[in-house]
Amino acid sequence: MKIAIDAMGGDLAPQEIVLGAIDACRELNAEVILVGLEPNIKGILDSKQITGLKLEICHASEIITMEDHPALAVKAKKDSSLVVANQLVKRGEAAAVISAGSTGAAMTASLLHLGRIGGIKRPAIATPMPNRLGVGVLIDAGANADCDSENMLQFAVMGSIYAEKVFGINKPRVGLLSIGEEETKGNKLTLETHELLKESELNFIGNIEGRDIHQGNCDVIVCDGFTGNVVLKLSEGLSSVLFGQIKAAVAANCLNTLGGLLLKPAFGKLKAQLDYTEYGGAPLLGLKGISMIGHGKSNAKAVKNAVRAAMKAVDQGVVSKITAAVNR
Amino acid sequence: MKIAIDAMGGDLAPQEIVLGAIDACRELNAEVILVGLEPNIKGILDSKQITGLKLEICHASEIITMEDHPALAVKAKKDSSLVVANQLVKRGEAAAVISAGSTGAAMTASLLHLGRIGGIKRPAIATPMPNRLGVGVLIDAGANADCDSENMLQFAVMGSIYAEKVFGINKPRVGLLSIGEEETKGNKLTLETHELLKESELNFIGNIEGRDIHQGNCDVIVCDGFTGNVVLKLSEGLSSVLFGQIKAAVAANCLNTLGGLLLKPAFGKLKAQLDYTEYGGAPLLGLKGISMIGHGKSNAKAVKNAVRAAMKAVDQGVVSKITAAVNR
Repeated sequence: MKIAIDAMGGDLAPQEIVLGAIDACRELNAEVILVGLEPNIKGILDSKQITGLKLEICHASEIITMEDHPALAVKAKKDSSLVVANQLVKRGEAAAVISAGSTGAAMTASLLHLGRIGGIKRPAIATPMPNRLGVGVLIDAGANADCDSENMLQFAVMGSIYAEKVFGINKPRVGLLSIGEEETKGNKLTLETHELLKESELNFIGNIEGRDIHQGNCDVIVCDGFTGNVVLKLSEGLSSVLFGQIKAAVAANCLNTLGGLLLKPAFGKLKAQLDYTEYGGAPLLGLKGISMIGHGKSNAKAVKNAVRAAMKAVDQGVVSKITAAVNR
Repeated sequence: MKIAIDAMGGDLAPQEIVLGAIDACRELNAEVILVGLEPNIKGILDSKQITGLKLEICHASEIITMEDHPALAVKAKKDSSLVVANQLVKRGEAAAVISAGSTGAAMTASLLHLGRIGGIKRPAIATPMPNRLGVGVLIDAGANADCDSENMLQFAVMGSIYAEKVFGINKPRVGLLSIGEEETKGNKLTLETHELLKESELNFIGNIEGRDIHQGNCDVIVCDGFTGNVVLKLSEGLSSVLFGQIKAAVAANCLNTLGGLLLKPAFGKLKAQLDYTEYGGAPLLGLKGISMIGHGKSNAKAVKNAVRAAMKAVDQGVVSKITAAVNR
């Protein structure tokens, strides 16, 4: 299977994207199509040892930037790396697409070119959420700012399939993010969703609260895209503030610096545990193809791990499993 | 001014509540009425040196527990410490009420007995949110799971007055919690609220995102009570997971333990910065009286600091300032 990568999307593109693609080919035996400005991609590849790697370039003359209006740019820039990469999947020339560029543009392009699975009302972003004991899936992480309870039920179904097939979690525990454990606690949306989840065949464990998100007592966290996006960015922001303050404290005096040196391996491990690059990307689920959205800051490691997740999702038939589940 | 404290509310009641009241009298020269089972309160006071302190007991024979249904219990248990404490404020015998018991019951009791300020549609909880540079106010932290944009505008007005009067922040920067900085980003509720805030006389700085919450670039964070409650509990949960993991790492081997010892003062400072007990309690704003809701785990320090905040709110005329602002 070939994975199409938007080589021009992301804060560190094309350099880190291309390096990540090379690593994916080398370490995961992946087949990759790098889509973007050929001279730029070649310029990076030229200095690397890539003989024998299954690495192709597909030229695309335009770039969608963070300043572009997502929907307009996807329609106007037909020869952009993002659009061309999605079309490769549409035409069956690639099995999945990965982009670390504008999330809005990536969603629009995949929605437009891959299309929704029949029966799915709203595709949703399933983002890996590191927790105390491992990793779970948060769905929706921002594709749908306003949702209804039927959307939420479909998010739960899709997230559950992804957690099982890609993270290898047997019978994933599905929790509904709310503001109290009791089923009578929540807003109108979660109260209605709770009823639907209770009647579903999912392994629904009930409501969870904000404090449970990082405890690891739930594998699939279901919420609307507004709440999910706040949760995601808050988790990232708070971790970074805390680590920043520890770093400042370590630099404050000699004793602290010594303490910091002694604890460096432990801090490194802790940081790695929370590190999004370990998981690479978040799929936009509900489409007739695998589309992985990378973090804007994606480095080579994140790109490589996004390729790994995309390959696994294809390999495990996530799209057909979702199609079957919603059309039962 | 006298402050009525529900001595029986909270996980550590009555012991820590009574000790906090003593500290408040001693350190802040507060006048406190401890409301609850007289023998129990007396039993704690008897072993303490309280001569000269302005400390009274007001007997109340019933207790509202966490197992009680909030609304039903407030109506049924008319001689509960929570209801009696609120009635003291209603009758003008106390200037403010503090409870660390069931949040739902505390809200119901204050709403019922103190009553809403005319013009205020929905009272809201304004919770202190520690950040990298100090402290801000998050409103609504959970009183209203479903809100409309007019509610949100009033939350912004009330939060702004509280931040200015109690935290001494001049022209507090008001941010609307959303999922993108641009005013076109958000859900239906935040898009509508953005318009209202833009036209208001508040120091509105636009949308903020989850990652900004702990950065300290905003003094009043406005959101619906569902999102606010998730934010609050997530922040608490993630900090506790991170500190827990650092603690485990420090215990893992001798070098780490030494590192931990050297960094102990720094960690202590960092923890104190995030510590809710520093700020004591969160007022339910929009009522004809000051009602402070304490954290369920409130210890003596939290109670003392809740008394401090309540005294300041009374002193600075927060209720009359809100009344004037909404009836302009």
